[in-house]
Amino acid sequence: MRNLKVTIQYNGKNYCGWQKQPDSLGIQGTIENAIYEITKEKIKITGSGRTDAGVHALGQVANFKLESKIPTEKLPNALNAKLPKDISIIDCIEVDEEFHSRYSAKRKRYRYLIYNSSYRNPIYKDMSYHVKYDLDLKKMCEEAKSLIGEHDFKGFMSSGSSVNDTIRTIYDITLQKQDNLIILEVEGNGFLYNMVRIIVGTLVDIGRGRIKESLKNIIDSKERGMCGHTAPAHGLFLKKVDY
Amino acid sequence: MRNLKVTIQYNGKNYCGWQKQPDSLGIQGTIENAIYEITKEKIKITGSGRTDAGVHALGQVANFKLESKIPTEKLPNALNAKLPKDISIIDCIEVDEEFHSRYSAKRKRYRYLIYNSSYRNPIYKDMSYHVKYDLDLKKMCEEAKSLIGEHDFKGFMSSGSSVNDTIRTIYDITLQKQDNLIILEVEGNGFLYNMVRIIVGTLVDIGRGRIKESLKNIIDSKERGMCGHTAPAHGLFLKKVDY
Repeated sequence: MRNLKVTIQYNGKNYCGWQKQPDSLGIQGTIENAIYEITKEKIKITGSGRTDAGVHALGQVANFKLESKIPTEKLPNALNAKLPKDISIIDCIEVDEEFHSRYSAKRKRYRYLIYNSSYRNPIYKDMSYHVKYDLDLKKMCEEAKSLIGEHDFKGFMSSGSSVNDTIRTIYDITLQKQDNLIILEVEGNGFLYNMVRIIVGTLVDIGRGRIKESLKNIIDSKERGMCGHTAPAHGLFLKKVDY
Repeated sequence: MRNLKVTIQYNGKNYCGWQKQPDSLGIQGTIENAIYEITKEKIKITGSGRTDAGVHALGQVANFKLESKIPTEKLPNALNAKLPKDISIIDCIEVDEEFHSRYSAKRKRYRYLIYNSSYRNPIYKDMSYHVKYDLDLKKMCEEAKSLIGEHDFKGFMSSGSSVNDTIRTIYDITLQKQDNLIILEVEGNGFLYNMVRIIVGTLVDIGRGRIKESLKNIIDSKERGMCGHTAPAHGLFLKKVDY
């Protein structure tokens, strides 16, 4: 039985998220159904992690075990023909039996789009967070540097998570402006529940002057109440997963 | 009676185009209705030009005469509150009585997005032209230079247009690649019906080797049959209009 690794792009707008829900297929279930249509095999695919409702992916990774001998290079087009247009399989390779898209992941990179203008933008409306207030981008870039390195990010986790070890390493964070769009990218060895969205919300609150505390002190406090708001899901993209 | 000039962004996906149709409001009618809701004035707005079904705008311009004394700086937010989220008014100023958004236009700039990859992209699906074939971008850039200057673009016009003077001046054309996205921008003193889409289709056909003729010879031929296909509407954005 082959172990196949696929790379997936999706527009999360019309989905309840990666995971199946009692009344909704999710991205995962939609792909499992497409695999069934082609191979008649009822398999379970494992994602590198769940994404919430509305979150998009440019490079989500999943793996699954398959009996079918369909060549890996034919699988993306075969699946895309069965999938709705807001999901696209962009790569498929055979991997070792031990490969697990979640446990084997070494690094993840997320992108977050902020549309910063007095007026909403109808082109980016489902893929960016509209912030009306003036943002001090230079300050946001400077403060963001405090995230780099290994820290206890306990404060940057939404309640309800059962994770005990809240220490994570951030390798890189960049903020770039293109016209009214601020493109934030952050890469780390792993992220707590809603961590990227709380990082973004905190940087936005710093950028508009609502939070005066330094990001270093906020991290050190380990208190959710010291951080900013949770930025909305629809600005978030899982960009890539490294193994 | 004031003459007001507004700048408009829209996502053309769910519209029959700028212009009203017997069974559909279009962008124009939708904005006219929003103005009526606020001012109770039944006015007609004049666009810088029509955009076809599916075409988007980052900076469409329109003007209209209004009795209402509502301050220009309040009008965008007032209208946006009444408009659907795929239309946004991003600027409003008072202009001379003589200003006409179509006749006074001096230059227009369009953007066209090509998504060039073997696999479709679910994020850009309604705002880019998916081209699966390898494109020789360097060749496309070189050939595109032949468009610069004043030419008779008769061949670059869809049939059915009643325009007699087919001479236009192109000031600038650029093609840039960002990951799999090719961003084409073209600026001119005016464009014939479907001219930008035929320019894009011809450059794509040159880029994939289906057209061997030089773009200079194609322009000189003045024959629609020498040009390439008409690229789809949903990759096209009216970026700005200069007066």
